[in-house]
Amino acid sequence: MESAMPDAYEPTERTVPTRSRERASYDRARVHAILDAAYLCHLGFVRDGAPVVLPTLYARVGDRVYLHGSTGSRPYRMTAGPEAPGLDVCLTVTHVDGLVLARSAFHHSINYRSVMMHGTARQVRDPEEKSAALDALVEAVVPGRAKDSRPANTRELAATAVLRLDLVEVSAKIRTGLPSDEPEDLDLPYWTGVVPLLTSYGTPVPAPDLAPSIAVPEYVHAL
Amino acid sequence: MESAMPDAYEPTERTVPTRSRERASYDRARVHAILDAAYLCHLGFVRDGAPVVLPTLYARVGDRVYLHGSTGSRPYRMTAGPEAPGLDVCLTVTHVDGLVLARSAFHHSINYRSVMMHGTARQVRDPEEKSAALDALVEAVVPGRAKDSRPANTRELAATAVLRLDLVEVSAKIRTGLPSDEPEDLDLPYWTGVVPLLTSYGTPVPAPDLAPSIAVPEYVHAL
Repeated sequence: MESAMPDAYEPTERTVPTRSRERASYDRARVHAILDAAYLCHLGFVRDGAPVVLPTLYARVGDRVYLHGSTGSRPYRMTAGPEAPGLDVCLTVTHVDGLVLARSAFHHSINYRSVMMHGTARQVRDPEEKSAALDALVEAVVPGRAKDSRPANTRELAATAVLRLDLVEVSAKIRTGLPSDEPEDLDLPYWTGVVPLLTSYGTPVPAPDLAPSIAVPEYVHAL
Repeated sequence: MESAMPDAYEPTERTVPTRSRERASYDRARVHAILDAAYLCHLGFVRDGAPVVLPTLYARVGDRVYLHGSTGSRPYRMTAGPEAPGLDVCLTVTHVDGLVLARSAFHHSINYRSVMMHGTARQVRDPEEKSAALDALVEAVVPGRAKDSRPANTRELAATAVLRLDLVEVSAKIRTGLPSDEPEDLDLPYWTGVVPLLTSYGTPVPAPDLAPSIAVPEYVHAL
């Protein structure tokens, strides 16, 4: 299915940035790589006319992104019931890669990779798709974990809602590289360069009630 | 001024979560500590009835948060002009502190600290406040840097807009600690515990056109 898709998302009025257009990308592989390198997005929706931005986990499967939450939480209540309309959302994923220190305050920046996804999210009602989405959400955070944990039972499935957003109106925005100073600033006596930001995992902390015979799994070491 | 403020923000209908209420906090010092440990937020606003979520830098000064951007970018154009109304926003800041691996897929979680701020953002027109806000935005990313770079000149100031949000309707949400498994799952043969997430800075990379006599400053080492 993926190979039949075009190589790039179609730009739209709202996915073309008003500035720094050279940083925008609609390349499908590039967008997917940014999405697959993270698992936390910020979900924006409108409630009573005002914006709400919630941090939430996500997983990409092909050209869809899945979110999950309690059936009692707002974006899921707003899309409950077979007759419920979808929910207009904007999902944004951001990696910070480095601090960009220019000689002028004005040209300070950060290096980043971000993806914005616009569209109408709908609840997943098909049990097989829902179950696969929940596996994908665990796998997005810790690849290998879904098969090494107890799957959701009927009660847990009933308490969990899954939202799906088809990736159609999508763009990436990327800044890399060095500071760009004004020519007249090049002789100023200030240090200039990039400070890379690194993310890593610390030593896993076993739960106190874990049987001592159960070792840290390979897929956790692999993080 | 800060000492005259109450110790906690007043909860409102939209800052009381529908679930996991025990994770919510309105404590002013706690909210400020979470804000001060980051510099990137996700700014939500409504455009043509649909949500938009933009990653952007911020700085807290007392009970205000400042954002900045090009005068040409949307949230700034939407608040330009002395007669312009404010912009309803939701600003969200999220730190991911660890991955929480429970025995059941359902109880998987992440440890995090987040803050949500609701309100009406307005453009800062007072030149002194604007200049102080721009310094604070540099300092929020690299403490010590504002004085060690060239301040914005008239042209740069004119091209930059600053938004201010007063912290009134604000809440934190925090998860810490171990997984919470169901009693009947305790004997399942799956590893359970927390994998801490660490953020650090790599070796600073000087710009190629930096004079070799200019060493990496102390405040960069201190990151």
